[in-house]
Amino acid sequence: MCQMLAMNCNTPTDIVFSFEGFRRRAGMTDCHSDGFGIAFFEGKGVRVFRDDKPGSISPIADCVKQYHIKSLNVIAHIRKATQGVVNIENTHPFIREIWGENWVFAHNGNLNQLPDLSNCYCSPIGNTDSEVAFCYMAAQLKQRFCKKPTEQEIFTAIKELAMELSAYGTFNFLLSNGEWMIAHCSTNLHYITRQAPFGKAERIDDNNVIDFRNYVKDTDKVTIVTTFPLTKNEIWTKMEHGGLVMFKDGMKVREIVGKPKVAVDDGTLGIAKIAA
Amino acid sequence: MCQMLAMNCNTPTDIVFSFEGFRRRAGMTDCHSDGFGIAFFEGKGVRVFRDDKPGSISPIADCVKQYHIKSLNVIAHIRKATQGVVNIENTHPFIREIWGENWVFAHNGNLNQLPDLSNCYCSPIGNTDSEVAFCYMAAQLKQRFCKKPTEQEIFTAIKELAMELSAYGTFNFLLSNGEWMIAHCSTNLHYITRQAPFGKAERIDDNNVIDFRNYVKDTDKVTIVTTFPLTKNEIWTKMEHGGLVMFKDGMKVREIVGKPKVAVDDGTLGIAKIAA
Repeated sequence: MCQMLAMNCNTPTDIVFSFEGFRRRAGMTDCHSDGFGIAFFEGKGVRVFRDDKPGSISPIADCVKQYHIKSLNVIAHIRKATQGVVNIENTHPFIREIWGENWVFAHNGNLNQLPDLSNCYCSPIGNTDSEVAFCYMAAQLKQRFCKKPTEQEIFTAIKELAMELSAYGTFNFLLSNGEWMIAHCSTNLHYITRQAPFGKAERIDDNNVIDFRNYVKDTDKVTIVTTFPLTKNEIWTKMEHGGLVMFKDGMKVREIVGKPKVAVDDGTLGIAKIAA
Repeated sequence: MCQMLAMNCNTPTDIVFSFEGFRRRAGMTDCHSDGFGIAFFEGKGVRVFRDDKPGSISPIADCVKQYHIKSLNVIAHIRKATQGVVNIENTHPFIREIWGENWVFAHNGNLNQLPDLSNCYCSPIGNTDSEVAFCYMAAQLKQRFCKKPTEQEIFTAIKELAMELSAYGTFNFLLSNGEWMIAHCSTNLHYITRQAPFGKAERIDDNNVIDFRNYVKDTDKVTIVTTFPLTKNEIWTKMEHGGLVMFKDGMKVREIVGKPKVAVDDGTLGIAKIAA
């Protein structure tokens, strides 16, 4: 499995406090050492940094720390390989162009069965289940909508695709087009929205403390989504199985509340279908 | 206009000697200061670094220098904006997935007319003529061949697309899928293949000298392609207008020799068509 981290805000924000705790889990406080990647949106453009070295010691991750890039939407991933060897092409997040936008995707989980990719317009480059799932989503979205539809139509389409792919296994994912951030939970995903009045936070992984009042304005809204909480003195919201949330400008704008996980075999597919 | 740099080798090689001279042209020895980008293939994967700051002073470019990434295929670009504002999404090189491979593209020139992109499977994210041209090439390639064809078929198809797009303006470009490097010349493109016996080279932009014998093996073959030569004591091959070369494992493997540029108005298109 892997761990994921995302940020969505209403003002370009530096993710280094969260990223520095998170990347310790890539070899120091946890074992997600099979490469890391982080993508920062800047307008419609994306800066991506990846390495097949553990995130905790990668010189590329050091570079990310030093540069303090500010962004409205960030997705990071530290990998514990389940399918696919450890190399750059298997390193999340994955990127595809959809309707003239960069779409960035990271996955935590494992799909036991893969969707059919018989069209030739979107193919995986590496050999992970995650990239196949993302290619399937991209191809389906392009097929359903030749041009970019409304935000509600996108959310509904992604809900349907998330339910379809969740039937194949564990499918926690983060997805952003630079305007919004979507989080889907199968097993573990937590979020927190920080806004005024801001206070202090203490990192779980190294006890480092930050006082957000020294860095932000009262109008700032910053949502962090991650596999497991990063701070010990804040209240994180745990998403339920099948939960899907869209964040925009740092706030939750759309939500499908999930349910505690129950396995149901409907007897038609020969695989356990998950009630969502 | 812009300047471009590429490397193709038979063993993973560090491009820092060339890149350090090249990036001085982004604000120090020349005026290509509207952002820079560099993509390193690693297997089928790509590491990409971009910045909208001038390549000569960008901290991201400093990071590239420090890390000494070794690669078989590299494409770098320093931008002097002609079409499209200065931002990350307009920063070359551009990347698209074609037949399950990363294809990386950089352009130097200016297209006065743009090809039709009425299909919805490949759209530009930024607003440069360069990205439109690349999307057109990607869409055409996918349309002509549902699965990856032979290398000769790819070379022939790219020759046809290069000729077609060259009719719209200046179209120097570099293109790689991680296996080979293709260079197309409209106006300025030079290359050199370094192989045993290796010697010393002196950079034009800062007189820095390297003795390759300290860094390479006798079996190494390294081709550098660039807009204007980077060293003063070596003999660079100048490509002619319409010239197209494919390099693989550091050596030229396919070539269409161009001709000195002559403008011919055939009277049917209402635009100057270039004899290639």
